[in-house]
Amino acid sequence: MEQYAAPINKLIEEMSKLPGIGRKTAQRLAFHILDMRNDDVVKLAQSIVDAKKYIKFCSVCGNMTDKDPCSICSNVKRDESVICVVEDARDVAAMERTREFKGYYHVLHGTISPIDGIGPDDINIKGLITRLDEKVSEIILATNPTIEGEATAMYISRLVKPMGIKVTRIAHGIPIGGDIEYTDEVTLVKALEGRTEI
Amino acid sequence: MEQYAAPINKLIEEMSKLPGIGRKTAQRLAFHILDMRNDDVVKLAQSIVDAKKYIKFCSVCGNMTDKDPCSICSNVKRDESVICVVEDARDVAAMERTREFKGYYHVLHGTISPIDGIGPDDINIKGLITRLDEKVSEIILATNPTIEGEATAMYISRLVKPMGIKVTRIAHGIPIGGDIEYTDEVTLVKALEGRTEI
Repeated sequence: MEQYAAPINKLIEEMSKLPGIGRKTAQRLAFHILDMRNDDVVKLAQSIVDAKKYIKFCSVCGNMTDKDPCSICSNVKRDESVICVVEDARDVAAMERTREFKGYYHVLHGTISPIDGIGPDDINIKGLITRLDEKVSEIILATNPTIEGEATAMYISRLVKPMGIKVTRIAHGIPIGGDIEYTDEVTLVKALEGRTEI
Repeated sequence: MEQYAAPINKLIEEMSKLPGIGRKTAQRLAFHILDMRNDDVVKLAQSIVDAKKYIKFCSVCGNMTDKDPCSICSNVKRDESVICVVEDARDVAAMERTREFKGYYHVLHGTISPIDGIGPDDINIKGLITRLDEKVSEIILATNPTIEGEATAMYISRLVKPMGIKVTRIAHGIPIGGDIEYTDEVTLVKALEGRTEI
């Protein structure tokens, strides 16, 4: 639809490629950008280019970082006996927000998913194995509670256990603030299985 | 919150300044951008910079355009006897989508709003008056049906009528597909007042 001048159409088109941004929203954002102060527009565009340019994967853990190794891997005060394995860099941020976990991370960048043609060699498992030495005493598997996440956890567990390292899986159950009445059966079963003595 | 590497935080911050983009959405967009192909990211950033750089206001009608006069004003096939007055460049696009109106436009860039300190001289009314010559026989006032839109229409009407030019206001009433039961009183009154014989 050639309804606006070409640069506006182009901007709307590019914005509407972003996830969750429909044509109407893209249009609203485009006109907002046209209303913004010139240097704010440059700052926005620059932040996009810079993020893509400077963010790399940490060569140790696979986390997204602008320096290598990342700020977590290069922090010597953390507990080197534990590695928490997650699917995605966003999961690292979620774990960090808890301020509870003091060990290191390992980011898999995906899960084993035969149906999508993703095998163990297509995700960052090899990198995990090479990191394991006598200092590491526990691997926490914090992949998502999906079929692929469970399968990936299972695969890593079988690989690591023979090395004499303790392998644990994060607990599944009723979320805090959740309601037993409205909890799905699978979660309830997990909550029952994972019950602890009080 | 310094939870990600600096360039990611910066990108999230810039994205969340956009209207309707909260922190969570900004985060999702940022990670999507990091996942995008390099040249797609450059294209996105470039479209932002270019839109701001090349889009100016048409010196004739005030519409947003990358060439001056805009494609509508420079189209000699349009009907020069009618000028449709709108608040915003987006309204021009909405009118154009109808493919019904063949005249020219005039974009006010706002409405008279004493409460916000916006008087007749702060919007593009003077530009309209200078455009009026013997070729123009009708001015259609298509400002929004808000207090400010009505006041602005009224103001322009009083200014233009003495020049012997017909001044009309777009109709207000029940929108097509709308429901009388759920229509607000003001719209119903307008619909009654604007009734036509069938």
